[in-house]
Amino acid sequence: MSETLTAPKTANATGATRSANSLAWSDRFVNRHIGPTSEQIQEMLKTCGFSSLDALIDTAVPKQIRLRRPLSLPPARSEQGLLSELRKIAGRNQVFRSYIGIGYYDCITPPVIQRNILENPGWYTQYTPYQAEISQGRLEALLNFQTMVMELTGLEIANASLLDEGTAAAEAMAMCHALKSTHKAFFVSDRCHPQTIEVVRTRAKALGLSLLIGNHQTFDFSTPVFGVLLQYPASDGTIYDYRKFIESAHQNDAMVVVASDLLSLTLLTSPGELGADIAVGSAQRFGVPLGFGGPHAAFFATKDAFKRHMPGLLVGVSKDAQGRPALRLTLQTREQHIRREKATSNICTAQVLLAVMASMYAVYHGPEGLRKIAERVHRMTHVLAKGLRRLGYDVLSENYFDTLSINLGQRHSKDLLKIAEAHQVNLRVVDAQTVGVSLDEAASVEDLTTLLKIFNGGKELNFSVEELAQENPQFEAPFVRTSKYLTHPVFNRYHSETEMLRYIRRLESRDLSLTTSMIPLGSCTMKLNATAEMYPVTWPEFGRIHPFAPSSQAQGYIALFQQLEEWLAEITGFKAVSLQPNAGSQGEYAGLLVINQHHESRGEGHRKICLIPTSAHGTNPASAVMAGMQVVAVACDEQGNIRVDDLRAKAEQHRTNLAALMVTYPSTHGVFEESIKEICDIIHRNGGQVYMDGANMNAQVGLCRPGDIGADVCHLNLHKTFCIPHGGGGPGMGPICVASHLGAFLPKHPFATVGGKQGIGPISAAPWGSASILTIPWVYIRLMGPDGLMEATKVAILNANYIAKRLENYYPVLYKGHGNLVAHECILDLRQFKLVTVEDLAKRLMDYSFHAPTISWPVPGTVMVEPTESEAKGELDRFCDAMIAIYHEIQEIETGKTDPKNNLLKNAPHTADVLVADKWDHPYSRERAAYSAKYLREHKFWPPAGRIDNVYGDRNPVCSCIGMEDY
Amino acid sequence: MSETLTAPKTANATGATRSANSLAWSDRFVNRHIGPTSEQIQEMLKTCGFSSLDALIDTAVPKQIRLRRPLSLPPARSEQGLLSELRKIAGRNQVFRSYIGIGYYDCITPPVIQRNILENPGWYTQYTPYQAEISQGRLEALLNFQTMVMELTGLEIANASLLDEGTAAAEAMAMCHALKSTHKAFFVSDRCHPQTIEVVRTRAKALGLSLLIGNHQTFDFSTPVFGVLLQYPASDGTIYDYRKFIESAHQNDAMVVVASDLLSLTLLTSPGELGADIAVGSAQRFGVPLGFGGPHAAFFATKDAFKRHMPGLLVGVSKDAQGRPALRLTLQTREQHIRREKATSNICTAQVLLAVMASMYAVYHGPEGLRKIAERVHRMTHVLAKGLRRLGYDVLSENYFDTLSINLGQRHSKDLLKIAEAHQVNLRVVDAQTVGVSLDEAASVEDLTTLLKIFNGGKELNFSVEELAQENPQFEAPFVRTSKYLTHPVFNRYHSETEMLRYIRRLESRDLSLTTSMIPLGSCTMKLNATAEMYPVTWPEFGRIHPFAPSSQAQGYIALFQQLEEWLAEITGFKAVSLQPNAGSQGEYAGLLVINQHHESRGEGHRKICLIPTSAHGTNPASAVMAGMQVVAVACDEQGNIRVDDLRAKAEQHRTNLAALMVTYPSTHGVFEESIKEICDIIHRNGGQVYMDGANMNAQVGLCRPGDIGADVCHLNLHKTFCIPHGGGGPGMGPICVASHLGAFLPKHPFATVGGKQGIGPISAAPWGSASILTIPWVYIRLMGPDGLMEATKVAILNANYIAKRLENYYPVLYKGHGNLVAHECILDLRQFKLVTVEDLAKRLMDYSFHAPTISWPVPGTVMVEPTESEAKGELDRFCDAMIAIYHEIQEIETGKTDPKNNLLKNAPHTADVLVADKWDHPYSRERAAYSAKYLREHKFWPPAGRIDNVYGDRNPVCSCIGMEDY
Repeated sequence: MSETLTAPKTANATGATRSANSLAWSDRFVNRHIGPTSEQIQEMLKTCGFSSLDALIDTAVPKQIRLRRPLSLPPARSEQGLLSELRKIAGRNQVFRSYIGIGYYDCITPPVIQRNILENPGWYTQYTPYQAEISQGRLEALLNFQTMVMELTGLEIANASLLDEGTAAAEAMAMCHALKSTHKAFFVSDRCHPQTIEVVRTRAKALGLSLLIGNHQTFDFSTPVFGVLLQYPASDGTIYDYRKFIESAHQNDAMVVVASDLLSLTLLTSPGELGADIAVGSAQRFGVPLGFGGPHAAFFATKDAFKRHMPGLLVGVSKDAQGRPALRLTLQTREQHIRREKATSNICTAQVLLAVMASMYAVYHGPEGLRKIAERVHRMTHVLAKGLRRLGYDVLSENYFDTLSINLGQRHSKDLLKIAEAHQVNLRVVDAQTVGVSLDEAASVEDLTTLLKIFNGGKELNFSVEELAQENPQFEAPFVRTSKYLTHPVFNRYHSETEMLRYIRRLESRDLSLTTSMIPLGSCTMKLNATAEMYPVTWPEFGRIHPFAPSSQAQGYIALFQQLEEWLAEITGFKAVSLQPNAGSQGEYAGLLVINQHHESRGEGHRKICLIPTSAHGTNPASAVMAGMQVVAVACDEQGNIRVDDLRAKAEQHRTNLAALMVTYPSTHGVFEESIKEICDIIHRNGGQVYMDGANMNAQVGLCRPGDIGADVCHLNLHKTFCIPHGGGGPGMGPICVASHLGAFLPKHPFATVGGKQGIGPISAAPWGSASILTIPWVYIRLMGPDGLMEATKVAILNANYIAKRLENYYPVLYKGHGNLVAHECILDLRQFKLVTVEDLAKRLMDYSFHAPTISWPVPGTVMVEPTESEAKGELDRFCDAMIAIYHEIQEIETGKTDPKNNLLKNAPHTADVLVADKWDHPYSRERAAYSAKYLREHKFWPPAGRIDNVYGDRNPVCSCIGMEDY
Repeated sequence: MSETLTAPKTANATGATRSANSLAWSDRFVNRHIGPTSEQIQEMLKTCGFSSLDALIDTAVPKQIRLRRPLSLPPARSEQGLLSELRKIAGRNQVFRSYIGIGYYDCITPPVIQRNILENPGWYTQYTPYQAEISQGRLEALLNFQTMVMELTGLEIANASLLDEGTAAAEAMAMCHALKSTHKAFFVSDRCHPQTIEVVRTRAKALGLSLLIGNHQTFDFSTPVFGVLLQYPASDGTIYDYRKFIESAHQNDAMVVVASDLLSLTLLTSPGELGADIAVGSAQRFGVPLGFGGPHAAFFATKDAFKRHMPGLLVGVSKDAQGRPALRLTLQTREQHIRREKATSNICTAQVLLAVMASMYAVYHGPEGLRKIAERVHRMTHVLAKGLRRLGYDVLSENYFDTLSINLGQRHSKDLLKIAEAHQVNLRVVDAQTVGVSLDEAASVEDLTTLLKIFNGGKELNFSVEELAQENPQFEAPFVRTSKYLTHPVFNRYHSETEMLRYIRRLESRDLSLTTSMIPLGSCTMKLNATAEMYPVTWPEFGRIHPFAPSSQAQGYIALFQQLEEWLAEITGFKAVSLQPNAGSQGEYAGLLVINQHHESRGEGHRKICLIPTSAHGTNPASAVMAGMQVVAVACDEQGNIRVDDLRAKAEQHRTNLAALMVTYPSTHGVFEESIKEICDIIHRNGGQVYMDGANMNAQVGLCRPGDIGADVCHLNLHKTFCIPHGGGGPGMGPICVASHLGAFLPKHPFATVGGKQGIGPISAAPWGSASILTIPWVYIRLMGPDGLMEATKVAILNANYIAKRLENYYPVLYKGHGNLVAHECILDLRQFKLVTVEDLAKRLMDYSFHAPTISWPVPGTVMVEPTESEAKGELDRFCDAMIAIYHEIQEIETGKTDPKNNLLKNAPHTADVLVADKWDHPYSRERAAYSAKYLREHKFWPPAGRIDNVYGDRNPVCSCIGMEDY
């Protein structure tokens, strides 16, 4: 089935103006994605004082930067038409059985987890759990993840996941260096996964550290190092007893990082027991599809003593206002408060959705189930080794878990590969005489038989796999795990599908997601994640491809990447794109490294000054530091705009060393700065490059383009503007787009032909980052078409201005641009109030079943509201009504009508427990606390925890399940 | 990927005893399906006083009926292995574009509806909404469905759906006859859909009515008829102006039934406006996949005057204890109270899940959207007609909506069909010179082009489809709809995906489903509906096949049906199976017709006496009446067993006319009757056949078989024993299994080669009933294997006995069998209490977040509890603890400690509204009302309505959205 969509007669895609005799489908996706109907748009325009949407946009967006032509993108398609087109593209991917290993393994996603988490908007549409009281479900799942990682690694604390194993190793190196900064060298075992080594190398170069890569068995610490990185089991499958080496490292004042395989740790002595200071790795094989590289959750565990240096999010147990245990993010600075130029990491989020899946996998299987899975994988590997030896091969591995290295003797690996290909099997090619095979949970007896047949030159075996399985393999004594793990009830209770389903659903009910109400977080663009966009993510043709499978098997993916790159280039006005960065922060880091490389290529490697406005996202300076730059702050005026005079002065002052400006557009204050072109000119005149932060791209698409404005690089948060769901705090994707003179420097990868000729090293473990979710923006762009995308931007701006207009008499709008308009978000000022804080407002909004806007960022004492185009007028009004009702509640406090401490805001959120308690000692009624708006009678989200005590939680950090008394 | 599963070493499939060096996957589905772990099973056995599960089973199940060998079924497979096998089978189905029509049309399921309803256990696992207070979500969706049907058909009342269009027409005929019983003849237009005519014919024959089938334009009512059935638009596509014919029918005292197409009614004068008394039809094309025949929701609308005669469930608006509007089933007797032998219909459920989908489709598109879809379908059809005429064809249709009849002239339809097949297109073949084409929502311009190309002999066209689309087609004046429809806000509010998602989720949150807690409904077997079982239902290879597509395109389905029939025959001990009945009640009806046919074939057509124990399901006598039998009741003793002496006396008394006994086993009283074999012998000795009701099959599978016990026919509720979810009140499937002497009489179908040589006519509209959900039992049986199925039965019996044991000191267990054991359910007696009713207990259980057991059936004043094997011990204990806590609450009332009217039970359920109200005038605390059990603090389902006033609702029936004041 296919279709032809007649182009809309007007640019107003939500309008009803269509040719009456059109044969096109009447149902158009753009009208499903954009919340307000055309009638509602007219009403809202009236409120804002404009007669048409174009008039409002022409006023809000500076003329000189407007794009005066439609984006050159394919026209919109219908959902069913596009999905059938994508099925054909998916069909060009070939799902081979991959035994490549190297950190990625096929696995079985339990259906109950796939359907009720990965395919459930109640789990994938939440934001990062900063508003802890309405995020208790995810926080519990993440606490399970942390507990699982701590216990399997044998370390004392673990975070709530990182982006991938490679970046986790790089973070570990940076943390070691922060703790032991006297040395500049870091030792990396040459038995680590190749992509991990390369990602660490990229980071080391940026930070000015030197890497020593070699054999740990011969390294003698004669060169002082601040840390070492080992792989356990090693990339070639060997299990080394690292105890002596670790002891020696510690004696030489070096920290020890062990990259490890989570499944093997159910059977092997843990890194913690071996003496490691840090363990990193991937939780992918705990039920998360390969997805051609991601998204997956990496883990990071360390000793308690180092917890305040650990990167990433950390969930901890605290208590709520009623003294009940409650979970929150602990010890960590929040995203917008990231330590700026003092940061050692720019990580602000995690891979929450994937960490949740992995933790649920452990909950579902329990310690016994996990052990059995691991034992079977090991048993299968043992059988394979026996079979290979019977076939006359020299199996190099002695101590192994799931991976064998095989010497082919007379044969050439190329020949073997041909036979393997004919059997739709991928092996790891080490060199001409050596191949590797890694088995996994999904391997069957038939798979083993096929494998052995391949090694038998494609001929049938004269023995059976079963007859090789007569004895059980044993690990040598030093490796046998004796310590217990996952003893907590949560890992021993939900082993039937019914129990598991109810546990997942119970946690879901404790989270406020987009399925409940709008999440008006400024700078986060919590728009619709349409079902049609999410469907392909769980198609096996996208899910079961190993990231290092030959590109011939990934032709569907490659075609999709090429199209997506073209479209993103057109949307941003740039020439080249890298899809590798798997988070916005990674995009910033990659973009700055590209700028570094550009300067170096011109012999100007000394250019290291990075100008950053004081209003910037905290990740900007953190990324600059990671890229080895020195941050110089640029002032902003009282309107929130960059002070052009200060910028000019700083640029000229540093003209010989100026590397870059990082700028967000529209500004983080939510306005279109008129001077943006001039700003870019000043930087260029002084030899610098302009890096544009794409956080606010949702206000630009189709209206203006970073490339036209004068930027040289930008990143895109595909999880903001392009509909990848936030997943409760990850996954994200942060590809970078660059002008033609920077294309040559885009990041490469050891396992794929990506990036530029003089490209920087890889910044993610996989060549295309989290490849499987790139399907989402691809579908979104095709469903919307150029007109639909522009219409979405316009409505996003209208929605923000409508809210600003409706609320400005209660909460002044702090910054406005031309025509007194904001861009796609607005900052509301609460500093007028003396007795009430923005936090009080945020918590009280929960009683109204809303998630708070972004609070105290970029300006303390304010909230930043971003409605996105996907919210209909009814929802905007419901939110505004709630805000106005709270304003009146605040007035009662401010004017002394009610107690300054015992009032509706300070006691918020009110849990059902509190509201139903026999005791009620508040000067307001229960009904007012619970049902201050009429809609709440019909539709109330009950906050599962009262106000959580932040101080208590940070003073008494408990970051594993053990502390939860109420289990 | 494939696997070999080693057979378990012991029959105890939940045990851990497995060969240590097995290469089989360690994760086994049977351990996910069965709730209790082997440790829990041991604990529960101890409570029950048995040392092993086998000892308990040997005591509970009479020795003489035990099956002494394992079922001969394929061994268990893993989930991923089986799904990959099923994908191959699915691949044998070929998805052609079908323009066959005849009541089935391709359509587009909006992704947000597919994922959040059809693929969401929060929507598909509920039971029928008899406990209205915790079913408000579904009830609202069904009220929307009723409103939609009423408004589109122009009639005053509509029910909450029926099984399919054919049975709806048969029900309509029966209702007409009940209202106008003076005549025996019913006129059916020969332009009705062929399968509808045949289903009506089957029913007429059973009821002793005569059908007059002919041309309505020439029928002159000279033969008196009690009613007429018309098709609008007619099956060949023609839109007739039926006004005069209807007038004439009414003048001749005949009722008028119009089978109509819902989509066309958005453009055409409604049946109600034409004068019809009843409108029936299918809501399939409102977003429900074809599914090779079902499940779909049929509709039934009539005039207000006839509402008390309407079959099926009817949702109405009432008010709750606080006076707020609340929904409930109204006017209808409940399933277990169906009017028994006075019934005119045995319908006790609906196609709730599919009616919900269809109603949501209307909510999502709204009146404008639906009209546009219909206009486009009509426009496309008009273009097709023009194109065909341009190609020189004689298009017979003048007034049409979506269907054309085409005279092929010189060509033979066989030749055209060959060309169509080459283009993967199905047409309707009427005769050698005539074909039909029905267009649908999914048709694209390219589809049209292909169609015309086929009619052009496969050659390219020398014109384009677009050039034919220059004018807009108009209906002739009498057909143009001028009345409004779907004006209620609910159809005009949720048109963005975000709004729709939230509406669906909001309704979901008002329903208690299996995702919340156990639903211990006796006789309903609310077991796990595993995700792996549900996956295939939404695969396009199963979903997009027209039920009358050539069998060559459905080879996957056919293979699956053959296997499923074999397995069900083996499980029941019978020889032949019909998969046609799409509900348990349909199975009963079909089974009795088969018995009729058997007697007729032996010249004993006079055998019409059907013995039915007084304890039987109400559907049994209703089905017997529908099959034209006379019901004679058989007494039960105080233990609930059939009184063999009474049975023998009745059987002998009626020996010349004895047709059948209908018996449930284990009995509806939840015990294994020892005398069952003797009972069967008595019937056979007196010339009767034994019909075994399969409602309680969950206590038999693998332990004993209806065929071995002595039955001749049984039906199976695949939605009970074999894991099809209840869908909130449908779909179900009720295939029948028969002994070899009855195989020849199984139901046929005009469009497929099914049934026996002397088979009865079709009893469902589609040859294999609701074909697409037959995948569910197929997957279940394969995942469990013979050992797993038997283990499930054993644990189901253990679970019931454990509950009986834990509760017997509080609520006496009314009936027990051998060894004081019950079968798979138990009846708890509450008749000891004077001030508290079973309804009070049921409503109070809601405060404990539980769905009530079956109440007052089969014995008034009792509850019947069936836990199924899928509930783990923790959940059973939670339920028992709640029941015991309520017992103590009852004691306070019974002993006079608390007010007999104002107490925890009489005021239950307590809504959050009530609990949080400023006013509280109860002698118990809010906390006790809300949190009487500790687990409720962590996990409480808030009843969305207070106790609903049944009397008010029945006295003031409002059955459309209009009455809901709070919109």
